[in-house]
Amino acid sequence: MPSSTFSDFALPVVPSIEDADFSAHIQHLLDDKTKPLGSLGRLEHLALRIACILGSTRPVLYAPQVVVFAADHGLAMHHGVSAFPVDVTWQMVANFLAGGAAVSVLARQHGMALHVVDCGVARDLAYLAPSQDTAPRLWLRKIALGTHDCTQGPAMTPAMCAAALRTGAELVQQLPGNVLLPGEMGIGNTSSAALLVSRLCEVDIATVTGAGTGLDAQGVQRKTAILQQVLQRHASVREPLDVLCAFGGLEIAAMTGAMLEAAQQRRIIVVDGFIATAALLVACRLRPAVVQRCVFAHQSAEGGHRYALQALGAAALPLLDWEMRLGEGSGAALVWPLLQSATTILRDMASFGSAGVDARKAC
Amino acid sequence: MPSSTFSDFALPVVPSIEDADFSAHIQHLLDDKTKPLGSLGRLEHLALRIACILGSTRPVLYAPQVVVFAADHGLAMHHGVSAFPVDVTWQMVANFLAGGAAVSVLARQHGMALHVVDCGVARDLAYLAPSQDTAPRLWLRKIALGTHDCTQGPAMTPAMCAAALRTGAELVQQLPGNVLLPGEMGIGNTSSAALLVSRLCEVDIATVTGAGTGLDAQGVQRKTAILQQVLQRHASVREPLDVLCAFGGLEIAAMTGAMLEAAQQRRIIVVDGFIATAALLVACRLRPAVVQRCVFAHQSAEGGHRYALQALGAAALPLLDWEMRLGEGSGAALVWPLLQSATTILRDMASFGSAGVDARKAC
Repeated sequence: MPSSTFSDFALPVVPSIEDADFSAHIQHLLDDKTKPLGSLGRLEHLALRIACILGSTRPVLYAPQVVVFAADHGLAMHHGVSAFPVDVTWQMVANFLAGGAAVSVLARQHGMALHVVDCGVARDLAYLAPSQDTAPRLWLRKIALGTHDCTQGPAMTPAMCAAALRTGAELVQQLPGNVLLPGEMGIGNTSSAALLVSRLCEVDIATVTGAGTGLDAQGVQRKTAILQQVLQRHASVREPLDVLCAFGGLEIAAMTGAMLEAAQQRRIIVVDGFIATAALLVACRLRPAVVQRCVFAHQSAEGGHRYALQALGAAALPLLDWEMRLGEGSGAALVWPLLQSATTILRDMASFGSAGVDARKAC
Repeated sequence: MPSSTFSDFALPVVPSIEDADFSAHIQHLLDDKTKPLGSLGRLEHLALRIACILGSTRPVLYAPQVVVFAADHGLAMHHGVSAFPVDVTWQMVANFLAGGAAVSVLARQHGMALHVVDCGVARDLAYLAPSQDTAPRLWLRKIALGTHDCTQGPAMTPAMCAAALRTGAELVQQLPGNVLLPGEMGIGNTSSAALLVSRLCEVDIATVTGAGTGLDAQGVQRKTAILQQVLQRHASVREPLDVLCAFGGLEIAAMTGAMLEAAQQRRIIVVDGFIATAALLVACRLRPAVVQRCVFAHQSAEGGHRYALQALGAAALPLLDWEMRLGEGSGAALVWPLLQSATTILRDMASFGSAGVDARKAC
């Protein structure tokens, strides 16, 4: 991290929370529940992980916060890398607030707080926030009217990037709860994510470039060629924050900041799809122990996602494989009750002893 | 179906509900939601399926019923095919009612009604049902003190089997709601399920015999050898109800009856793991359109499950692959909120037109 340029964002301290003794204790508690050993499979793994993140033998999830970071992309504005026009970014922000988007209805289903953060939408959205008290709430934290065109230079200056990181971190500081479900909206942001994953994981750009919102084969080919140019334009950039500046976007940087802060606070981070995982990848290159606080919601249909997950290690095993590729935090919101199920089996299931069920094997 | 022997169970009529026009209409509604085409993946498929089962463009799930059928197995009593003693069946019934089992805590998490049905536990359980009004409720419908030893003859007489089928069907008739989540408890019932699947799907018994509650390799080998003997003892049995009589169990037959009735009423059937799928297989051999009403909760870690699913066709695609193998209806209860999410995206998401979001492609 070039300390001078990012001096206005203090990188959170994120120590390792690995604790073999505590983990073994939780595993023992799970093994003693009234069920054949290991028979709840990955639900038990999830319970173990949540207990270890929260450091509790009786973990209680409370006040989960869905936060959707929205921003526009210079690359999409100038080069049409998306199947949809850039206006869809602000239109979807309005849709989130009106309650009609996928993440809106899923958050409502689960009674979860939904926040939308304008950190760089290419349109003034003040008119959408008549009151700071209504729910879902729009946070006006615009840093710029979108990123710069990264075929010409970095998508963000270090100051823009630091402001976005700080925005995400400060927001988490203001929100209650012990679970963060970050999402994003930004026409063109699969391009940023592909560039980030390609550079940080050293995989070919063609491998991690997909249809995004729905490009046809020709569109994907065109997008790949443009992204290849962008990579060449920034061929020497290697440091995580420099890579983030080079490729954007503002909403991705804000997610990275939010994840770093959530990790420092030892909140559970529910990681959505391709874009969220790209943001996490940056966070983990800066603070490797962030991944210990994560639960991975789903395997995205966007092809690059698997490479980002692989780079995060064995624990980055998504709960669902449902061919989803919407973003918004929709996958994270979808799996929320599965996290609650994991905690309830650990907290509330009887042990063999307490229930008077024979634990001994018959043979 | 040998009509004379099963004359006291009237097989429900289960017509096909396939309707290409209605299905296309639902797909159009989903395609018009504010999201890239198909980007919610299998959540959309699930919404489509539920809408088609209920025949509604705005499906509402209500009063879901978790029903755990419990019974004992002569094979387990006489030949020790399970890792756990048969007493665990009644002990777990008590645990279900006390609220300490996995299915108990999951049903409670979701506010779902939980019913436990004694249709053949090898112990008098009347003492567990002091009141018929308490929840969770125990239904005393004991047909026998477990099945007969199927190495010596059929596990059930036709009269026992018919009584079990009727018990399941009548229970569903008495319960409200439009979603059935059947589960089971019966030490030894992976043996019955393996026998049913082996015979009905014509796959080798070794292929579909697993560790059940936790046999070691030697135990599985011994179990397989016993099941091989049982198959030879009933080598000529081919008709679905005769196969069910031959191999049991009472709880499986009751599930089959419940599924047939639920299908006739056009309820959604949430299919749990290996045992539930074996019961469904029998139901589908009798009434093929039952499968159209099903949602498949998870891919069990019990190896035989995949063969039973394959026999049910392409729609038998489980929602989760979590290496679970507990039974009780625990997998079905776990996925319940995912069904609710599917209905809420169909009912409550905005369309491009209603939300003012550009539906046109940019390129």
